[in-house]
Amino acid sequence: MRSVILHGVRDIRVEDRPEPRILTPGDAVVRVVAACVCGSDLWGYRGIRDPGPPHAVGHELVGVVEQVGDAVTTVAPGDFVISPFSFSDGTCQACLHGMTSACDHVCYFGSNDPDGLPVEGAQGERTRIPMADANLVRVPGPVDDALVPSLLTLSDVMSTGHHAAVSAAVGPDTTVVVVGDGAVGLCAVLAAARLGAPRIIAMSRHADRQKLAVEFGATDVVEARGDDGVAEVRRLLDGDLADATLECVGTAESMRQALGSARGGGRVGYVGVPAGGPKLPVGYLFERNLTVGGGMAPARTYIPELLPDVLEGRIDPGRVFDLQLPLEEAAEAYAAMDERRAIKSLLRP
Amino acid sequence: MRSVILHGVRDIRVEDRPEPRILTPGDAVVRVVAACVCGSDLWGYRGIRDPGPPHAVGHELVGVVEQVGDAVTTVAPGDFVISPFSFSDGTCQACLHGMTSACDHVCYFGSNDPDGLPVEGAQGERTRIPMADANLVRVPGPVDDALVPSLLTLSDVMSTGHHAAVSAAVGPDTTVVVVGDGAVGLCAVLAAARLGAPRIIAMSRHADRQKLAVEFGATDVVEARGDDGVAEVRRLLDGDLADATLECVGTAESMRQALGSARGGGRVGYVGVPAGGPKLPVGYLFERNLTVGGGMAPARTYIPELLPDVLEGRIDPGRVFDLQLPLEEAAEAYAAMDERRAIKSLLRP
Repeated sequence: MRSVILHGVRDIRVEDRPEPRILTPGDAVVRVVAACVCGSDLWGYRGIRDPGPPHAVGHELVGVVEQVGDAVTTVAPGDFVISPFSFSDGTCQACLHGMTSACDHVCYFGSNDPDGLPVEGAQGERTRIPMADANLVRVPGPVDDALVPSLLTLSDVMSTGHHAAVSAAVGPDTTVVVVGDGAVGLCAVLAAARLGAPRIIAMSRHADRQKLAVEFGATDVVEARGDDGVAEVRRLLDGDLADATLECVGTAESMRQALGSARGGGRVGYVGVPAGGPKLPVGYLFERNLTVGGGMAPARTYIPELLPDVLEGRIDPGRVFDLQLPLEEAAEAYAAMDERRAIKSLLRP
Repeated sequence: MRSVILHGVRDIRVEDRPEPRILTPGDAVVRVVAACVCGSDLWGYRGIRDPGPPHAVGHELVGVVEQVGDAVTTVAPGDFVISPFSFSDGTCQACLHGMTSACDHVCYFGSNDPDGLPVEGAQGERTRIPMADANLVRVPGPVDDALVPSLLTLSDVMSTGHHAAVSAAVGPDTTVVVVGDGAVGLCAVLAAARLGAPRIIAMSRHADRQKLAVEFGATDVVEARGDDGVAEVRRLLDGDLADATLECVGTAESMRQALGSARGGGRVGYVGVPAGGPKLPVGYLFERNLTVGGGMAPARTYIPELLPDVLEGRIDPGRVFDLQLPLEEAAEAYAAMDERRAIKSLLRP
């Protein structure tokens, strides 16, 4: 089968790989209908993180189950499924509290499962999904192909934007600032609007992203950054700051922007952390009584919660995909995002 | 009048000071009925923080109003009042959200008010309280003298322990670990029990404090620290970790203990930060999806909430005072806490 391999900095190739197969009774093999390129895939691509030896990449997919192991009971061959970007066992303390991304046995696409068995990348024709009952979410069929992009966002970016909003306890009384206008930041705007936030300020400098942010529910756009950005938030809010800020980038600067844009006693939900992330100054948090929460989204918990809104057309997060290409053109999918010619690239095998 | 002055490291003297008087129409002058020594007073006393030039100290008091300015409407001469340890304006965005400790005009005992006018320390015979309507809480009288210690804890340590619990969203389903067995840690145990937590593990190595922790509602005591302490928590919880951990010390070690004792997706409420506090590793928080919240307690918001429980005898936080001395013996009150001969010292002018 064909699969996307990262060979080194800015060196993406599509190559032949052995067909995945059932290795344990809990496995499923899924044929990929659509996968995509994530902002975090660019860390290795750009060399922000050491790309390491050549390896299969991608961690977001929707697809159709082709085979299941003997122990699998919740999905069957022919089912259309969404996979979360991280895998969990569904039984540990964190999973029982819905925080599947902090599972004791968390594992990832393009790496090994808890038994030490390899899992392919999601950017390929097929992949083995370990602990399939705990991870795959069946979409009731038949599935309209026009919904595929939005369903695919539940695998990561929409769940991740939602996690930023949930971590900052966004609700109908919450004034929100979203830091970051990538796919996750845009989905965070949509998530905040979905949770009823009446005022959502998107920080963005790109016209196309500003436009989508407004269509997703942003009431205001701020182009300024740093202290000027905070001052502009204050101006828009008649001298106040935001109840909740959603940090969707993961740099020291973006975290500073999120902390500084929150009112005393406010809440920061963060979901972006490249390369280990910044350190948080406890003294500053202490003085301003800020609550900081977030991390990797428990997508497996959120997919069933968000799915009805996608199926019934109440949200359309798939609009973050402004480039769709065949899998064989994965190199261009990466380059377009790297060069900011695309917000997010969808790949079809 | 007589007042406690910190002259330098381990140099506490009681000296004559000018009588405080009304300086602005919003002021009140309060005769101190009881004040006390806080763990944070020891930072300057021990030289952990530069003690600076000689200055009046203390930030916790209950007392009787003696004079009020023309603009004061909520308290009158003769009223028994509790003062929060920090002063706020009651009108800024943070105050309107109840987070009075993050007020735009926050000011403190032993420093200057927003008009630049001096405020005495609380460890003295009298003090001027700025913005009296926003800060003083009247206790319906007559006040039983036996309640004075518990009422005094609302000024700081009980409100602060409560803030740790509130910041970690402690409730009837929450398994709690409390890090720190000083007066704040003990009050955090009491606050967690008051909020219904069914399982409260107190980390303490001192027999007298362990005993009080259990009387305040701790179900278990752990003496071990570091990784051994985390392992002991796991053993008590059948392999699990705590939903909420309350960090009531403020060192890098205690914060590490609090972070490490929380389950994936758990919450850390922190209220102790000497000398600027540690840095939080975002990468670690991200992987474990921990939420960290807290800071200086908005005591002014909590006093009215906790007061009925004290007046009606449902909680007795005043038991943290195991030493009561006349104001003139303030030096011994400090020394006893410094040498851990006392948990907390109460002073009566």
